[in-house]
Amino acid sequence: MKIEPIGIINTPFKQKEGMPIQPTGGTGVKGCIEVFSGFIEGLCDLEGFSHIILIYRFHESEGYNLKVKPFMDDQLRGVFSTRAPKRPNSIGISVVKLNKIDNNLVFIENIDILDGTPLLDIKPFIPSVDSPDEYKLGWLKGKSDKISSKLSDKRFSNE
Amino acid sequence: MKIEPIGIINTPFKQKEGMPIQPTGGTGVKGCIEVFSGFIEGLCDLEGFSHIILIYRFHESEGYNLKVKPFMDDQLRGVFSTRAPKRPNSIGISVVKLNKIDNNLVFIENIDILDGTPLLDIKPFIPSVDSPDEYKLGWLKGKSDKISSKLSDKRFSNE
Repeated sequence: MKIEPIGIINTPFKQKEGMPIQPTGGTGVKGCIEVFSGFIEGLCDLEGFSHIILIYRFHESEGYNLKVKPFMDDQLRGVFSTRAPKRPNSIGISVVKLNKIDNNLVFIENIDILDGTPLLDIKPFIPSVDSPDEYKLGWLKGKSDKISSKLSDKRFSNE
Repeated sequence: MKIEPIGIINTPFKQKEGMPIQPTGGTGVKGCIEVFSGFIEGLCDLEGFSHIILIYRFHESEGYNLKVKPFMDDQLRGVFSTRAPKRPNSIGISVVKLNKIDNNLVFIENIDILDGTPLLDIKPFIPSVDSPDEYKLGWLKGKSDKISSKLSDKRFSNE
């Protein structure tokens, strides 16, 4: 499968440690996507949506383990039950706020993404599609309200 | 970027036309993911979550246009403001219900995915992370409640 970045995500987070682990933790943090010139026309009609789904590459995550200690836990968990950046295919997704589009620049807010991240796709966030009414949280039960204040540590660094 | 399927999604939808265009349209439709043996350990702890995010390849979508007529509209829209399957990087995401895991088999429900689709990643759905409280819908305003009854037509076929 051929994967080619459509742009670069610029954010204030220059290193993997000490940054928010999810968009809720990056509330108010602003960034800007630079969409490559060949894809600008695809941004039409996007500005009406308040939230967009970014699909990107965890470009600083090399290798993976099938069991990991996620940021929100100290027990080993199956990697697919976590949002850990080191995964078999290093694809990340984040729902972020869309503030403005100016030609090839997409201004976003509520970011948990590392500076320089290669963007693979943008999709509009559609609640009736992307958000079920009822849910269960598995190992994260009782912990998910703390996600917004949790910062990353060194557990997924490449050292 | 190296992308390698971690499994195959088996569903009742054998052809692209006439299937639901989003998971809400596939309510009650059941399927089964066959996770390849090398990745089974990564499924640990996933069963506690009621909903999972599947990231997959639109394997029957070749090529793309930057402006498309999405299933929900008859006007040309920028591809990134739509969920059209033909996109610069043919990556799809769906939030589906998780019913049961049995070794390498992940039984799912509420599916809008074509049979035989290569699976790239599974992530737990976490509402506080994946679902903003307030939103605007852009060109889909007033139309999104019809998504669940809309079926795909031939507009993204490869002919």
